Parts: sequence; C-alpha cells; structure tokens
Amino acid sequence: MLNYSQCFEIVENRLSALSFERNPVELYQPVKYILSIGGKRIRPCLAIMSHSLFSDTVEPVIEPALGIEIFHNFTLLHDDIMDNAPMRRNSPTVHIKWNQNTAILSGDAMLILAYQLISRTKIDVLPKVFSLFNKTALEVCEGQQLDMNFEKLSDVTVDNYLEMIRLKTAVLIAASLATGGVTANATADDINNLYQFGLNIGIAFQLQDDYLDAFADNHQFGKTIGGDIVANKKTYLVLSALQTADKNLINELKYWISEKKTNTDEKIKAVKSIYERLNIPARTKDLTHKFFSTGLEYLTKVKVADNRKDPIIQLLTQIMEREH
Amino acid sequence: MLNYSQCFEIVENRLSALSFERNPVELYQPVKYILSIGGKRIRPCLAIMSHSLFSDTVEPVIEPALGIEIFHNFTLLHDDIMDNAPMRRNSPTVHIKWNQNTAILSGDAMLILAYQLISRTKIDVLPKVFSLFNKTALEVCEGQQLDMNFEKLSDVTVDNYLEMIRLKTAVLIAASLATGGVTANATADDINNLYQFGLNIGIAFQLQDDYLDAFADNHQFGKTIGGDIVANKKTYLVLSALQTADKNLINELKYWISEKKTNTDEKIKAVKSIYERLNIPARTKDLTHKFFSTGLEYLTKVKVADNRKDPIIQLLTQIMEREH
Repeated sequence: MLNYSQCFEIVENRLSALSFERNPVELYQPVKYILSIGGKRIRPCLAIMSHSLFSDTVEPVIEPALGIEIFHNFTLLHDDIMDNAPMRRNSPTVHIKWNQNTAILSGDAMLILAYQLISRTKIDVLPKVFSLFNKTALEVCEGQQLDMNFEKLSDVTVDNYLEMIRLKTAVLIAASLATGGVTANATADDINNLYQFGLNIGIAFQLQDDYLDAFADNHQFGKTIGGDIVANKKTYLVLSALQTADKNLINELKYWISEKKTNTDEKIKAVKSIYERLNIPARTKDLTHKFFSTGLEYLTKVKVADNRKDPIIQLLTQIMEREH
Repeated sequence: MLNYSQCFEIVENRLSALSFERNPVELYQPVKYILSIGGKRIRPCLAIMSHSLFSDTVEPVIEPALGIEIFHNFTLLHDDIMDNAPMRRNSPTVHIKWNQNTAILSGDAMLILAYQLISRTKIDVLPKVFSLFNKTALEVCEGQQLDMNFEKLSDVTVDNYLEMIRLKTAVLIAASLATGGVTANATADDINNLYQFGLNIGIAFQLQDDYLDAFADNHQFGKTIGGDIVANKKTYLVLSALQTADKNLINELKYWISEKKTNTDEKIKAVKSIYERLNIPARTKDLTHKFFSTGLEYLTKVKVADNRKDPIIQLLTQIMEREH
C-alpha cells in the first residue's frame, strides 16, 4: 500500500510524461502551464490510495486518477475567468497570462484531455468509472453555478451553502475515492462507503478553508488573511453569523459587508471581531470536525485490514491539522 | 434504411425527450435554448444514415449521434463568445441573452452532457466510439485555435486554410459517419472509407459556405450577403485571391480588407469585383466539386448495396445544390 508522498510522485511523473508539446502551441501551452504551477494533487492521490486499500497493483487507477486531476485543473481555469481572478498558486491565471479566449478554449481542451484519460480505464470497469465521472463533472458545474448565483442573492442560508460546497468541492473528492474502489473491483458497499467518506471530508476541507481564510496563522498559511472578508464572499463564517446574530449585530455585519471603500484592515478586524463575539470560529471548527468524523466512520466501514487505511488517515490528519 | 427527414424526426424527438428541467435553471436553460433554436441536425442524421447503411435497427447509434449534436452545439456556444457574435440562427447568442459566465459554464455542462450520451453507447463498441470522439473533439478545438490565430496572421495560405477547416469542420462530419459504421459493427475498411468520405464532403461544405457568403442569391440564402467580406474574415475566397492576383490587384484587395470605415455595400461590391476578375467564384466551385467527388468515391468503396446509399447521396446533393 502506498502513502501520500509515493502517490504524489507517481502523479507528478505521469503528468510530466503526458506530452503537451503539440500544435497549435497556443492551445496546449496553457494546459502545460496550469499543470506545472503546482498543486497538492489531493484528488488523484486519494484515488490511488483508495485503490491501494484493496490492491498493491495500482496501474489500473493511474489514468482515471490523472483524468480527475486534469478535470480539476480545467475547473480552476474556467472558474478563474468567471471569478475574474488574477492569480492562482502565486502565478498569473491563464486568462491574464494569455487572454480570455485562450483560457476558454484551452479549458475546453483540458476537459476533453481529462476524458481521454478516463477512456483508458480498463474495459471491465470503464462504464462505471465513466458514468461516475460524468455525474460528478455535471455536479461540479452545478456547484459553480450555485456559487455564482449566491453572489447576487441576499438570503443564502447555511444549508444552501453546504449544498453548494457539496457540489462544487466534495463530490469530486468523493468520486476520486470511489473511482479507486471501482478500479480495484471493490464491492458496491465498499465503493459507496468510500464515496460517503469523501463527501464528508470534502465538506470538512472547504469549511476548514473558510476558517483559515479568516483565522489562519498568517506566516504558516502563506496567503493574506481575510481575503474572503474583503471580497464579501458568502462563506460559512458570514452566513452562520447572519443566521445567529441579533438584529443589532446583523446590521453591524451588514454595514461592513456592504461597505466598499473602507480600509481593508479595519474591515477585516471589524468582521472578525463580530465573528468572535458570535463564537463563529468555534462553531466552524465544531462543524468541520463533525463532517470529518462522519467521514471517518464511513472509512471504518470499508472492509479491509485497518492498517491499510493508515496512509489515507495520515494524509487527512495532516490536511486537517494545518495551522492548528 | 432511413432518409434524412426520418432521421431528422428521430433526432428532434430524442433531443426533446432529454430533460433539461433541472436545477440550477441558470445552468440548464441555456442548454435547452441553444438546442431549441433550430439547426439542420446534419451530423447526427449522417451518423444514423451511416449506421442505416448496414442495419435497419438504428437504436445503437442514436445516443452517440445525439452526443455529437450536443457537442456541436457546445462548440457554437463557446465559439460565439470567442468571436463576440451577437446572433446565431436568427436568435441572440447565449452570452448576449444571458451573460458571458453563463455561456462559459453552460457550454462546459453541454460538453459533459455530450459525453454522458456517448457513455451510453453499447459496451462492445464503446471504446472505439469514445476514442474517436475524444480525438475528434480535440481536433475541433485545434481548428478553432488555428482560426483565431489566422485573425492575427498576414501570411495565411490556402493550404493553411484547408487544414484549419479540416479540423474545425470536417473531422466532426467524418467522425459522425464513422461512428455510424462503428455502432453497426462495420469492417475497419468500411469505417475508414466512411471517415474519408465525411472528411472530404465536410471540406466541400465549408468551401460552399464561403462561396455562398459572397455569391448566394440573397433571397434564397436568407442572410446578408458579404458578411465575411465586411468582417475581413480569411476565407478561401480572399486567400485564394491573394495567392492568385498580381501586385496591383493584391494592393487593391489589401486596401479594401484593411479599410474599416468604408460604406459596407461599396466594400462588398469592390471585393466581389476583384474576386470576379480573378475568376475566384469558378475556382471555388471547382475545388468544392473536387472535394465532393473525392468524398463520393470513398462512399462508393463502402461495401453495401448501392441503393442503400441513396438517402445519403440525396441529402448531400440537396446540401450541395442549395442556391444553384
């Protein structure tokens, strides 16, 4: 069975071996670029580690796992256009470095390249992998649409938000883990438990991201604190605050999140202080922990020897413990 | 064996049966819209007619054929953003009717929906259909990239142009016909001949479009004559003119195609007169006819009774004779 750093190495090597030195270069260079500017490769590694729960011969999972990673990067590329984001992983986004049309078209090509890798799944499990991938890819688009809708809505609830992150983030983590089960010929029960495991930890990851954006240790986190607050992004923190606060505090919070010209440090400080008064940091950690534990319960149900699960648990713990 | 209008009816009925009444509506309404504003459904009909050369049971080709039609509409949706086109089939384009982000994301969803239909191909031919579709989809993106590159290049040759339309237009016609062969379990030779047949007639279709844009009978063609001339689009007509003309005429043509403020009627008249002096209309018709005949030769090689080919030949003749 393989640990995260072994899986990471496999993914990096196999991604590098995909040649994007093709014509027209304007189409393929951005694909090469976005795959080269880093990323933790969590999804393909989880797919490989999941397969590796059942079998030490991981070759059958590699190509679908790479397909999932390329799909994930395709979503980043197109989301960055839609969100007008100038930077990704400390590098300029594709639509900034090249232009918007290039970002649209190279993104399209990446989605097709993702399917090309999926198509190389061994034939006995291809229909299952293919159909799970289709369902998931569509759900990710639905999640992105909901996220865009939320920008214009004033009455988004915490439940709406959890449904959005389930679609936008969690289903792809879930599908990665389930795909590893499918390629290893696991039972339907095991595959379903892996999927539910992924769904819950996927939501936990996003809640943790929301928390860290406001409350991370600046030095360790490596990006500016309070980005979501400045952008008036509807995160779990703000939606939960609006749902908990009394009328006065709601008005105070609304004042800050409608404010545009304010000194951003002042705004971040004010909004964080409201969060703290409402005990939002602890509530967020609790909910994150709840999803994380529920996820682990599903992993427990997967019928393989406990020690085979150690590498996955180790990786997840590492992710969940960052900054704490 | 089925004729075009029978195939058209199947495609329309089956497209209508696909339910896009799903949430979020902002994602699926544009998909429903672009599929509802018409189109001749040439590609799925050719796939069905191709299958129908070999077998009267056409069900196995329907879903991949619909996948190809949805893919084609996806390319229109994204190309219209990239080309900044306000109208498509006499209706506003998706990025105009909704907005650009919606057009990007709904297009992405359509590409996934196309694959969802491809995934329903019967298992014994799924790998072949899937891999042909992947290759073709990527080539269509390459063609669109070349088309965009050409806008900024001053030395595009007729050969460059033919390669671009091969990728942007012809390979999808070719793949439609080949897919029909694959789903009908045709021999490798027959499938290859169907593909080459489609490639050649696909190029002929585009050359004919170029010709009609400038020289169609206005009443019959139903759209403004000279749109490509006004837009300074690098079509076969202009590239062939630039390659044939003497220095004086090249300068005259270059004057018109660099001119921006001119009265458009005057410009169209001037450019068409240059084309006529260079005998471009006849040259274009000749080349179109050459590709069309080459295509038909490949169809002749397909080993089924000649009368089974009648519906396809009838449809193609109808397409090639419009306006003449």
